Amino acid sequence: MLKKRDLTQYPLIDTSSNLDKNLVVGIIGDGQLGRMLVLAAARLGVKCRIYSSNCQGCAISVADNVIQGCFTDFANLDEFANGVDVITYESENISLPAVKHLSKKYAVYPPAHALEISQDRLAEKKFLKSLDVNVTAFQAVSSEADFLAAVQRIGTPSILKTRFLGYDGKGQVELTANSELSATYSRLSGSPAILEKKVDFEYEISVILVRGLNSLTSRVYKEKIYDIPANTHEKGILKRSIVPAPIDDNIRLEAKAIACKIANALNYVGILAVELFVVRCGKQAKLLVNEISPRVHNTGHWTMDACVVDQFENHIRAILGWPIGNTDRYVDVEMVNILGSEIYQLQSFLPQSKSCIHLYGKETVSPLRKMGHINKIKSFS
Amino acid sequence: MLKKRDLTQYPLIDTSSNLDKNLVVGIIGDGQLGRMLVLAAARLGVKCRIYSSNCQGCAISVADNVIQGCFTDFANLDEFANGVDVITYESENISLPAVKHLSKKYAVYPPAHALEISQDRLAEKKFLKSLDVNVTAFQAVSSEADFLAAVQRIGTPSILKTRFLGYDGKGQVELTANSELSATYSRLSGSPAILEKKVDFEYEISVILVRGLNSLTSRVYKEKIYDIPANTHEKGILKRSIVPAPIDDNIRLEAKAIACKIANALNYVGILAVELFVVRCGKQAKLLVNEISPRVHNTGHWTMDACVVDQFENHIRAILGWPIGNTDRYVDVEMVNILGSEIYQLQSFLPQSKSCIHLYGKETVSPLRKMGHINKIKSFS
Repeated sequence: MLKKRDLTQYPLIDTSSNLDKNLVVGIIGDGQLGRMLVLAAARLGVKCRIYSSNCQGCAISVADNVIQGCFTDFANLDEFANGVDVITYESENISLPAVKHLSKKYAVYPPAHALEISQDRLAEKKFLKSLDVNVTAFQAVSSEADFLAAVQRIGTPSILKTRFLGYDGKGQVELTANSELSATYSRLSGSPAILEKKVDFEYEISVILVRGLNSLTSRVYKEKIYDIPANTHEKGILKRSIVPAPIDDNIRLEAKAIACKIANALNYVGILAVELFVVRCGKQAKLLVNEISPRVHNTGHWTMDACVVDQFENHIRAILGWPIGNTDRYVDVEMVNILGSEIYQLQSFLPQSKSCIHLYGKETVSPLRKMGHINKIKSFS
Repeated sequence: MLKKRDLTQYPLIDTSSNLDKNLVVGIIGDGQLGRMLVLAAARLGVKCRIYSSNCQGCAISVADNVIQGCFTDFANLDEFANGVDVITYESENISLPAVKHLSKKYAVYPPAHALEISQDRLAEKKFLKSLDVNVTAFQAVSSEADFLAAVQRIGTPSILKTRFLGYDGKGQVELTANSELSATYSRLSGSPAILEKKVDFEYEISVILVRGLNSLTSRVYKEKIYDIPANTHEKGILKRSIVPAPIDDNIRLEAKAIACKIANALNYVGILAVELFVVRCGKQAKLLVNEISPRVHNTGHWTMDACVVDQFENHIRAILGWPIGNTDRYVDVEMVNILGSEIYQLQSFLPQSKSCIHLYGKETVSPLRKMGHINKIKSFS
């Protein structure tokens, strides 16, 4: 295990020796993103150890081994870290104190401050504003009085969101001109919140960026960016990512420039996902950043079958200090999530001639649960 | 730390049907072919259990669990088989009695008779001749007198090969006009052998065919065949497979027809590899079958990055009775094996922009050992 000598300095993995020994990546979390990281690491001959709260997740069956424990058990976390070469995580809804604890002694990527910002919708919006990146109008809400004042300023339609622990549309309440304000506020049970002006967008797109360290020089490799998908949701859950997104080249370049600015500001290592709205303003289009995720991302799953090196392998390469792989896309592709009981239609998916099927092996099915995805190859670019 | 075998409990699942349950494949053997089968099964949400003699192989770290045992321990084999939905193997150099034992009670694919034929060079040649498939001149050798008579009939250059347990050029002695015959024969230590006329070939090619059962109807799916690579060897070990092979269309069709004939005669299920020599006869080209392998094959590794569904996934689909996936190739590609100490050049392989890298995570390096392979994307077809 590489000790982190200095928090402000990147820990160096001695590549000259590490390419000829078997490396171990520690992954906090045991879901499908962890699973696909394990499979990508395996392709590179790299073993993975999973830190899991209940050993029920679908990453367990492919991992080399697993440590069961809760995020407040620092001794257990240290046991997990002992003997792994680098630590990463598959979700931003994990314990920040745990990641900060591990970061004091071990190499943990993406950096804890990226996690900290992405966990708090208010900090995230403020951070983005500090970079002169456009976001929708927002206001912090920590009381009903705050909420009423925020509605007064921002108006409707708008969305009241919990600041922490939101994903896949959870912890969100939409607000219209007819909403009963006090009842709406009470649905968040007093959680710290943020009111955001609802964005009337033309497209939702995302930028999947990878930025890594050269372990030989300790310099940052120039970031690479995958092509930009347009994403559609059903009931707050991602359903489809279509690549290429039907957007103008100047919007494409601007979105990539925004993601680079964010990654540089965070001194980022690994895969970073930036979700953006494309908003029509007359003949012009404008970009607003919706949120950032310091991890591999569902809107990047199409890279598994349309690129030389996919987001999972590039995340592993980046955190190990290995050269970042080619992110070029060589086919048009549509990623479709298999949600909940759609998994029972597998018999009809399997024979489709241009469908690359990825199933997560989850033991139980529940409504809208992400059970797998299909990359439908469309054509050659 | 929990070992995987402690974590997992296996529900007994009806072998014949259900696509909506979590299935388990048992794999006999723990090498890189088993490893890549495990990773392909994982993409389909299918778990794998490995039967391993020493638990040292590179498939272990990604398998869901492992049963250690020798091939003569039928009780242990039964424990391995109990709770898996189907059994397969990654090498033809495994115990035929073990596979026959398991086949009495469990679903084992490819069928034991295909294994039996491919394990014995003499039975293989006789089987091929019985199908009117061309093979090089050969004669059985079970004594020095046999050997001298065979040399008399077949002439030189020729190759004396052990009938059993040969692979990667092992158990073979080349014979020229100058060879000292008695000394040559003694190098096989009296093993049952076969003398084969050495083939002066233009190309070595291989056909990777997949044939499956429809578990819903118990009928055979029509076989599918991958495009044909041309293969080159170094010191008896496969070094490169280049696709497409530079051969005429009529040769391509004839090679595929031969593979179909063999698969049908064997009532085959799974991936079957057929190696052939393209021999020049004046303006005509002629095909001779060299050998057949009832398993996924090194000359099919390019399918991992050039096809919608690769040989490993199609093997898993076939043995589970699932629909066979699309075998179309959509890019030109060259597969290069990383042999022995070439693994230390990884630092130079990783940045190559069109190289898809696959490493097996083997703990020790020895000369010419297969450590990984690279699929170099050449162009779009």
